[in-house]
Amino acid sequence: MSDRFSFRLLATDGTARQGMLQTPHGAVATPAFMPIGTQATVKGLAPDAVRATGAEIVLGNTYHLMLRPGAERIAALGGLHTFMRWPHAILTDSGGFQVMSLATLRKLDAKGVTFRSHIDGALVELTPERSIEIQGLLGADIAMQLDECLKLPAPRAEIERAMRLSLAWAERSRRAFEGAAAGRALFGIVQGGDDRDLRVASARALVDIGFDGYAIGGLAVGEPQAVMLRTIEEVVPVLPAERPRYLMGVGTPEDLLEAVARGVDMFDCVLPTRNGRHGLAFTRFGPINLKNARHAEDSRPLDAQSSCAEARDYSRAYLHHLVRVNEMLGAILLTTVNIAYYQDLMRGMRAAIAAGQFQEFASGIKQQWDAGDTTG
Amino acid sequence: MSDRFSFRLLATDGTARQGMLQTPHGAVATPAFMPIGTQATVKGLAPDAVRATGAEIVLGNTYHLMLRPGAERIAALGGLHTFMRWPHAILTDSGGFQVMSLATLRKLDAKGVTFRSHIDGALVELTPERSIEIQGLLGADIAMQLDECLKLPAPRAEIERAMRLSLAWAERSRRAFEGAAAGRALFGIVQGGDDRDLRVASARALVDIGFDGYAIGGLAVGEPQAVMLRTIEEVVPVLPAERPRYLMGVGTPEDLLEAVARGVDMFDCVLPTRNGRHGLAFTRFGPINLKNARHAEDSRPLDAQSSCAEARDYSRAYLHHLVRVNEMLGAILLTTVNIAYYQDLMRGMRAAIAAGQFQEFASGIKQQWDAGDTTG
Repeated sequence: MSDRFSFRLLATDGTARQGMLQTPHGAVATPAFMPIGTQATVKGLAPDAVRATGAEIVLGNTYHLMLRPGAERIAALGGLHTFMRWPHAILTDSGGFQVMSLATLRKLDAKGVTFRSHIDGALVELTPERSIEIQGLLGADIAMQLDECLKLPAPRAEIERAMRLSLAWAERSRRAFEGAAAGRALFGIVQGGDDRDLRVASARALVDIGFDGYAIGGLAVGEPQAVMLRTIEEVVPVLPAERPRYLMGVGTPEDLLEAVARGVDMFDCVLPTRNGRHGLAFTRFGPINLKNARHAEDSRPLDAQSSCAEARDYSRAYLHHLVRVNEMLGAILLTTVNIAYYQDLMRGMRAAIAAGQFQEFASGIKQQWDAGDTTG
Repeated sequence: MSDRFSFRLLATDGTARQGMLQTPHGAVATPAFMPIGTQATVKGLAPDAVRATGAEIVLGNTYHLMLRPGAERIAALGGLHTFMRWPHAILTDSGGFQVMSLATLRKLDAKGVTFRSHIDGALVELTPERSIEIQGLLGADIAMQLDECLKLPAPRAEIERAMRLSLAWAERSRRAFEGAAAGRALFGIVQGGDDRDLRVASARALVDIGFDGYAIGGLAVGEPQAVMLRTIEEVVPVLPAERPRYLMGVGTPEDLLEAVARGVDMFDCVLPTRNGRHGLAFTRFGPINLKNARHAEDSRPLDAQSSCAEARDYSRAYLHHLVRVNEMLGAILLTTVNIAYYQDLMRGMRAAIAAGQFQEFASGIKQQWDAGDTTG
């Protein structure tokens, strides 16, 4: 624990930004991708291995951790950083998204949400105040306000109701956070679905409340990429330049390029980890599905020029075998390869923005994806 | 690939022996424990992590590898060492044990066994000659003869029939092995169930054929430990002192102490890996079942004095959490801890034999197991 939370903008290239988050657990260069550590572990990787990919911050899921092993227990064990042996930055979500997607929802009203745990059916209440309390017990460097996230498409009236509720919860979250340990940050979440006016109203109201950073929520829930990109373009101009912007739950490597081009600084997504467990590798040549029989006798590595040893050292034939026989090592190696690829992509974007060459960089990356693997 | 296979006896202490195997892929200090790498991977661990536990040799399963990805394919990809990135020694079994335990056996006769694959039902034939051929394609440093392994108890006539068949297959394996790449070794397997006379007859006949090493097979199949130890005591005096002795499929840490005391040099067993995947840690204080709720708030590591970082660095509470929520990292960490514990135990036995203090060492280890964990 050292510095207070802060954000410095170091370079811009068009709308794209390169900056540096300072947190009580170290610095995070932005644009940054946060691997998902749902249950106090990035699935399949020891913390040193996560760090070795270049990751400087991971995401923890409040919903899962409050149920097992429990926020109070993690606090008694020294907090989430100590518990999971990740001494670097941690952002926790509010729990709201997973209450609504995983739990049996009993009641959602102005006060908060009451739900049954998907594990043992226990009745649990989550309010904006309790979410902030839990995130404090976990010791998150960056906490998120509780919000209501709808699936799209949804009727405008329903989107507006959820957005207004999220705003009311934003205010309560901000108040509850006032007693938080010095140096921690709280982000507000812009809602409003695919409606421009509601998005802008949400963003303006959040800026009036005042947060350490602003997230764009309610995307990557089934809408076309164009809707997501348009929404970013609508929201970003309303947000203060001196605060970090976080696009929640996004996305593919292409999504990241497009969102960074539009001024987003932070991302989280299950794709590199979940796809790694299902035999898909993200590479410079685009995604490679190791389940495919064409890899069975291919002695080449995934990418001989990768900065990631796992991508350089193991043959595609071996990875194919591991995936086909469902060996843990296949999931481990591909998860490593994928997180490392995402981190490399972010590193490349940061350098390109600093050099004023983001568009050229993005075009080059996309060309290589389109060309595919021509090393054979 | 360098040296030819050889075995040097370096020290004895009573019946216990300390020696050194030389193989085309490096030296192996004995007594040695071989982690199981069934499907061309020690489940959950990258090869560097296996090596870091101190392991100098792993076991590969011919039955699994011949079915997926296939011995010819592994050979085309450079052999098993290259395929799985394990440049150190490998012993492969003959495939016979798993044909008899996993496959639907179609026919067993003097020629060999015909079975249906447990994966796709394909009809496959395994003869002593084909087993040797497969192990050659894999590139095993140490190959095993095909044998027939019975479950105990079994009628004496049945045990004798299987023992005689295994002897006939031993001779054919030896002949088939004559064309093997220079430097590789072939071990014969003593059978005879729990019958002293059959065991001695089997061992004598194998010694007459002449092998690079001798395994005691057909144990750890459900018999009491006393039967296993008595059988070792009956067989060992018949075996030449200058050849390594390998007790197949054994065992618990206590089994290892008792068998080394009786002159065994090599072991393999699924216990450290399989139990690691099921929440059980082997430690200096005896086995610790991390599933147990009493670990939920225990911030102590498994063993602060362990040579294994995973046993020193993670709290029992965290390991308990990972096991309870069924996270891959729990299996990975406990597998690492367990293999490292087995390797430490072997290292301790080797040093004790060299120092002429094996009995004192074994007593001390058992006392610590009995005392349990008194560090709290």
